[in-house]
Amino acid sequence: MKNRIDLSKYQVRTDLIIENIDKDLNKNNINTKVINDDLKVTTINVDDKLMGKLNKKIGTYITIEFSDITNHEDRVNVGDVFIEQVRLLIDKLGISEDDTCLVLGLGNKNSTADSLGPLVVDKILVTRHLFELGTNVKEGIRSVAAISPGVMATTGIETYDVIISLINKIKPKFLIVIDSLASSSIDRINKTIQLTDTGIHPGSGVGNNRREISLDTIGIPVIAIGVPTVVESTIIVSDTINYLFKHLSYIKNNYQMNKLIFTHNKDYLDSVSDDLSLAEKKEISGMLGELSDAAKRNLISEVLTSLDYNMIVTPKEIDFLIDNLGKVIAKGIDKSLHKVIDN
Amino acid sequence: MKNRIDLSKYQVRTDLIIENIDKDLNKNNINTKVINDDLKVTTINVDDKLMGKLNKKIGTYITIEFSDITNHEDRVNVGDVFIEQVRLLIDKLGISEDDTCLVLGLGNKNSTADSLGPLVVDKILVTRHLFELGTNVKEGIRSVAAISPGVMATTGIETYDVIISLINKIKPKFLIVIDSLASSSIDRINKTIQLTDTGIHPGSGVGNNRREISLDTIGIPVIAIGVPTVVESTIIVSDTINYLFKHLSYIKNNYQMNKLIFTHNKDYLDSVSDDLSLAEKKEISGMLGELSDAAKRNLISEVLTSLDYNMIVTPKEIDFLIDNLGKVIAKGIDKSLHKVIDN
Amino acid sequence: MKNRIDLSKYQVRTDLIIENIDKDLNKNNINTKVINDDLKVTTINVDDKLMGKLNKKIGTYITIEFSDITNHEDRVNVGDVFIEQVRLLIDKLGISEDDTCLVLGLGNKNSTADSLGPLVVDKILVTRHLFELGTNVKEGIRSVAAISPGVMATTGIETYDVIISLINKIKPKFLIVIDSLASSSIDRINKTIQLTDTGIHPGSGVGNNRREISLDTIGIPVIAIGVPTVVESTIIVSDTINYLFKHLSYIKNNYQMNKLIFTHNKDYLDSVSDDLSLAEKKEISGMLGELSDAAKRNLISEVLTSLDYNMIVTPKEIDFLIDNLGKVIAKGIDKSLHKVIDN
Amino acid sequence: MKNRIDLSKYQVRTDLIIENIDKDLNKNNINTKVINDDLKVTTINVDDKLMGKLNKKIGTYITIEFSDITNHEDRVNVGDVFIEQVRLLIDKLGISEDDTCLVLGLGNKNSTADSLGPLVVDKILVTRHLFELGTNVKEGIRSVAAISPGVMATTGIETYDVIISLINKIKPKFLIVIDSLASSSIDRINKTIQLTDTGIHPGSGVGNNRREISLDTIGIPVIAIGVPTVVESTIIVSDTINYLFKHLSYIKNNYQMNKLIFTHNKDYLDSVSDDLSLAEKKEISGMLGELSDAAKRNLISEVLTSLDYNMIVTPKEIDFLIDNLGKVIAKGIDKSLHKVIDN
Repeated sequence: MKNRIDLSKYQVRTDLIIENIDKDLNKNNINTKVINDDLKVTTINVDDKLMGKLNKKIGTYITIEFSDITNHEDRVNVGDVFIEQVRLLIDKLGISEDDTCLVLGLGNKNSTADSLGPLVVDKILVTRHLFELGTNVKEGIRSVAAISPGVMATTGIETYDVIISLINKIKPKFLIVIDSLASSSIDRINKTIQLTDTGIHPGSGVGNNRREISLDTIGIPVIAIGVPTVVESTIIVSDTINYLFKHLSYIKNNYQMNKLIFTHNKDYLDSVSDDLSLAEKKEISGMLGELSDAAKRNLISEVLTSLDYNMIVTPKEIDFLIDNLGKVIAKGIDKSLHKVIDN
Repeated sequence: MKNRIDLSKYQVRTDLIIENIDKDLNKNNINTKVINDDLKVTTINVDDKLMGKLNKKIGTYITIEFSDITNHEDRVNVGDVFIEQVRLLIDKLGISEDDTCLVLGLGNKNSTADSLGPLVVDKILVTRHLFELGTNVKEGIRSVAAISPGVMATTGIETYDVIISLINKIKPKFLIVIDSLASSSIDRINKTIQLTDTGIHPGSGVGNNRREISLDTIGIPVIAIGVPTVVESTIIVSDTINYLFKHLSYIKNNYQMNKLIFTHNKDYLDSVSDDLSLAEKKEISGMLGELSDAAKRNLISEVLTSLDYNMIVTPKEIDFLIDNLGKVIAKGIDKSLHKVIDN
Repeated sequence: MKNRIDLSKYQVRTDLIIENIDKDLNKNNINTKVINDDLKVTTINVDDKLMGKLNKKIGTYITIEFSDITNHEDRVNVGDVFIEQVRLLIDKLGISEDDTCLVLGLGNKNSTADSLGPLVVDKILVTRHLFELGTNVKEGIRSVAAISPGVMATTGIETYDVIISLINKIKPKFLIVIDSLASSSIDRINKTIQLTDTGIHPGSGVGNNRREISLDTIGIPVIAIGVPTVVESTIIVSDTINYLFKHLSYIKNNYQMNKLIFTHNKDYLDSVSDDLSLAEKKEISGMLGELSDAAKRNLISEVLTSLDYNMIVTPKEIDFLIDNLGKVIAKGIDKSLHKVIDN
Repeated sequence: MKNRIDLSKYQVRTDLIIENIDKDLNKNNINTKVINDDLKVTTINVDDKLMGKLNKKIGTYITIEFSDITNHEDRVNVGDVFIEQVRLLIDKLGISEDDTCLVLGLGNKNSTADSLGPLVVDKILVTRHLFELGTNVKEGIRSVAAISPGVMATTGIETYDVIISLINKIKPKFLIVIDSLASSSIDRINKTIQLTDTGIHPGSGVGNNRREISLDTIGIPVIAIGVPTVVESTIIVSDTINYLFKHLSYIKNNYQMNKLIFTHNKDYLDSVSDDLSLAEKKEISGMLGELSDAAKRNLISEVLTSLDYNMIVTPKEIDFLIDNLGKVIAKGIDKSLHKVIDN
C-alpha cells in the first residue's frame, strides 16, 4: 500500500513557474522587485541549467503578484507594472515599433473561470483593418489584430489549428496570447499575472499533449500572458490538510503553555513552521502525516479522479475579479502596443 | 434638377431575392407553398435567363416567410419548415450522411442587430472534436465544427481571410453560414429566413466589394442562411411616403363620399391600389409624387448620406426576436445535420 | 382633408427640454457654457412664466451636449462636466453630505436601447448596507443604495409602485434616477445628457398617464438623469423630408447658377436656410411642402401607427455607445456622491 | 486538544433537507418515488416530532434528484416531474386558479453560481400588468408578477426589505421564490431541486440571521424552489478524506487478497462500507480518522476560516448547467401556473 502511494505518478499541474522555484535558486537567475506591500515583480531567467531543474523551457518568466485588483488605485498600480513589463519583453524580443501584432484570447467566453482571454480580446483596440483599408492612421499607432479562437469543446476544432491557420494567413510579426491558468495554490488565484516569451500549448488544460506555439515552432516571438483563475479540487484538499497540521501544531503549543487561545490567521500560519514532530504528525493524521506533499496530492487526486469530480475551486467573486483583470490587461496591452494611445 | 434625380445611380441594397421578384416571373422558376395564414415557403430557381433579370447568381433560393416567432407554436411550425428545407438543400447538393460540416456564424456578437450568426454558433451541437479524438460517437451523428469569425471592425482581419484559412486547414465537406441581412422592406424584419446554395460575400454589408465564398470558388457546397434584422433609414422614409399616398388617397375617397372616416390598417393599405391620379399626387406631394420608387430612394439616400446618419431601423423588441430566431435556427440546423438528435 | 391634417392632435413626444426652447427665450432663464467645440452645457430655469410656454414643470434643466463619447479624452471631458453639474444640483437642492441616496435605474436591461438605467445601477458603488450592518465606513463615503425596478412588461408591476414601496421602506433623503429618453432629433441620440430636479413619470414612455415621482409628491429631492437613445420612426421620416427641401433648394440654386455641384454636408445644410419659396416648395412636394412641422409629423405618425410599425431608430453602434455612456454616468455619480472616492 | 476539536460548535450549513434525513426515518413521514434510474422524487412531511430531529420547520419538503440535465430528454423528464410537484403543492396549499402569484428570483445575476433566481425570473411569463391594464386575457391565464430583488451587496438594501415592501404594495395571493442553495455534498450540485412550503430566509446565505418570509409571517403561502449550485470548500475537503478511507480500505483488501488492483469508481465506493477498523483508521490518519463527520468538518472549517478562503466549489460546466436548470424551472413554473400555456 505504501509503495503504491509513494509512487509519484505525476506532477501536480501548475502553469506558474513561481510555484516551482526553490529557495536556493541561483541569485543570477532570479530578480525580485517589491513595489509596495501589495505588489511585487519576480523575473526568472531560465537557462539551460535551470531548465531541467524547474522543468520549464528556456526563456524569461515575469510574475506580477498583487493582493487586490478590486479598487481603482490597485488597478492603476498593477496596470502600470504590467505595462512596464510588457514593454520590457517587447524590447527584449527585438520587436520594432511598426511590427504587426496578433492578440489571441484563449479560453471559453461562456465559462466564467476560463473567459479572461476572450474578454481581453473584446476590449482590445484593433487597428490592422485600418492599415489594410488604407485609412490614414495616427502616428504611433501599431497594426493590431485580435481574435478569440474558442475552445475545442465548443468549436470542434483544435485551438492550435485555428491559430496556426490564422498566423499563416495574416503573417503577424509577433503574438500576444492571453489565457486562464491553473494554479497549485489557492493564494494566487486572480492575484498573479505571469508573462513569458517561451510560447504556449493551446488546449493543454484539457490534459492532452498539444503542439507548441513558440518562436521555435512558428518563427515569430510569442508573449504569453496568463492569470491563474482556478485551482483543482486536489489542491484545496491537500493545502487544507497541510494548514491543518500547522493549526493543530499551533493549538497544541499554545494549549500546552496554558495560554489563551487567540485567533490566528493565514499570515501567522504561513510564518510559523509546522513544528510537529513526525511522531506527533503520525499521531494526528497517521500515514497521511508522513506523506510528502507530492505523494499526498497524488493520493487525493487518485480519489477525486475515481469519483469523476470535475470540480473547480474559485473565489465567490470570480465574475467580478475576471472583469477587473480583463480591464487591466486590455488597457495595459493597448498602452504597451501603441505609443500615443490615451484610453 | 429632374435629370439628376431621375438618374438611378444605384439599386437599393437588399440581400433578399424575394424583394426583387416580379409578378410576371415565369411559373417554372418559382414555387410557393402556403403552410398556413402565417407561414409560407417560396422556392426560386434562378437559371441563366433569370440571373440577369434578378441580378442574382444561378442557384436555389428558398424564402420562409412567417408573421410571428414569439410564441412556442409558431416557433415549432417555423422550425419544422426550416428543417425540411435545409434537408432538401442538403440532398439537392449531394451531401452525404457523413460529410463533415463547418458552421460559420457571421456578424458581431456585441451588436444586437448583427448578432444572429454568433448566437446560432453558440447554440449549435459541435461534434467534430469527438471524431478527431477517437471518441465513440453515436450512429447518426455527423461531424460538425462551428465558429464565429468575428467582424473586421473588431478583429482587424477580413472575415473572408479568417474563413478561408480555416477551410484550408480543417477541410470540411460543406459549409453552413448564418448571417444577418438588410431588408428593403420593414415588413420582413425578423419575419423571413432565406436559404440559398449560391454562396456568400462575407463583410459585404460594409459596402466593400469582398470576395465570394461559394461552390465555384472553394469547391464545396455552401448553404447560406440569412435573416433580415434591419432596414436602412432610407427605406423607412420612402416606404412611409408611399403609404402616405395611399393614406391620403383613402382619406380623400372616403371624405368625398361623405362616409365616416374609419380607421384603416396595414392590410387595408396593402390591398388597395394607390388610386390617386398623377395630378392629384402632384397636388399632394409635387415632384416627389411623380418620382419612381427607385428615384425616390436614391434621392432620400443622397440626403441621409450627406447627413452621415449611420442609422438602423429595428423593432423595439429586437433583442427578444433575435434570441427566438437563434433558437429556431440552431435547433433546426442540429436536427437537419444529425439523424438521431433529440434536443 | 386639409382640416384634418392641420389638426395638431398631439405633440411629438420628446423628453428633452432643449428641443422645445425658442430662439427668443428670455436671457434670464437660459445660460449656455461652451467648454469646447465638442462640448456645451445649457442651463434652463423654468419659472412660472416659462412653464406654460415650454409645457414643462418649474425647475432646473441642465443639458450637456457633446459630439462624441467613444474615446477616452472625450469621456473624461464629458465626465468632468457631468460631475460638476450633478454637484451643483445637489448643492442647489440643499442635500447634505451624509444624506442617504437611492439610485434608480429605469428601463429594461434586456433591451439595448432601454438598458442605460440598469447598466448604470450595475456599475454604481453601493454602500448603504455597510452603514446598516455597522461596518466601519471611510470618512467621506455617503450611504448609497441602488436598484433597477424593471419595466412593467417584464415584471407585471407598475414601475411607480415598485419605486414608491421601496422609498417608503428605506426612506432615502434624495433620489437619483437614470433613464433612457426619446429624442425628437436624430442628432441628439447618445449625444446629450439631461439633468433636472423636476421629477419623473416612470413608465411614461409607454404612453400611459403615470403618476409623478418628485419633490412635490414624495417630499424628497429627485435628480433625474436622462439620455436620448432612440428617435421614433416618425421623426426620421419628417426630419429627412425637411432636409430634402434644403437639399433640393441647394441643388436648385447651384444648378441655376451653373456652378459645379459639389457635395454638401450636414453642417452646410444646417447653416443654410431653406430658401425655397412656398410656391417652389409646393412645386417640389405639393401639400406636404406647405405643412407645418407639427402637422407633417402628425400625418406621418398617423400613417406609421396605422401600419403598426413599432420601430425605433438607433445608431448602428448603439451597444457600444450605451456601454460608454453607462461608464461615464456611473463613475460621475460615484464621484458626485462621495467625497473620497477614487475609482 | 481533542476536547477542543470534538466540540461541535456548529452544524455544517446545508439548505437541503435530504442531506439531513436518517436511514431510520419513520416511513409515515417519507415517500420516495423512483421515476427511472436517473430521476427520483422524495417527499418528506416534517411534523412536530420530526421538526426537532431534523432541525427543520414543519411542512412539506419535496426533493427531485436527477443525474443529468444537459440533454433534451432529461430536461423533459425532470421538467414533467417538477410541474407535477409544483401543482401538487399549489393544490395542497389551497391556492385557487385565479390567485395572483408573485415570483421572486433571489440571488446575484452577475455571479454565475448565484444567478439561478434572476435567470428564472427573466424567462417567466408575466401577465399581471395585462390584468391591471384591463387587457382581455385568455381564459386559463393567471395573473403573475415577477421580480429579482437583487442582493444586499449590490443594492445596499436588505433583500427582505425589498420583498416585504413589494408584497405590501401589490398584495399577491401567494409567492414562488427561486434561490441557489448550498449543498453539503458534491454529488448534489446542480442535480437536485428542492420544493418546500415552509418559507425562506432571504440573505441567509451570508450567515446573518435574517427574518423569515413564510405563511406564518406574511399570511400567504410561500413555495420555495431551491437548487444547490455550490458546496463550501470545507465540504470537498472532508468528503475527500472520507472517500480516502474507503479508497485505502479497498486497496488494502484487494492488496491483501493478492488480487489485481482494478479501477474502482464512485458507485463502488458508495456501495462498500468503509470497513477499516478504528485501529486501521488511526494507523492511516491518526486522530483525523477517529473524528466524527461533524467534528472533522468543524475542524476543517476552522482552518479555512482562519485562512479567509472565501472559496466555492462548482462543476467546470456551471454556466451551462445553470442555463439548463433555469430553462427547466421557468418553463415548469409557467406550465404550473397557467392552464393553457403552450411554450
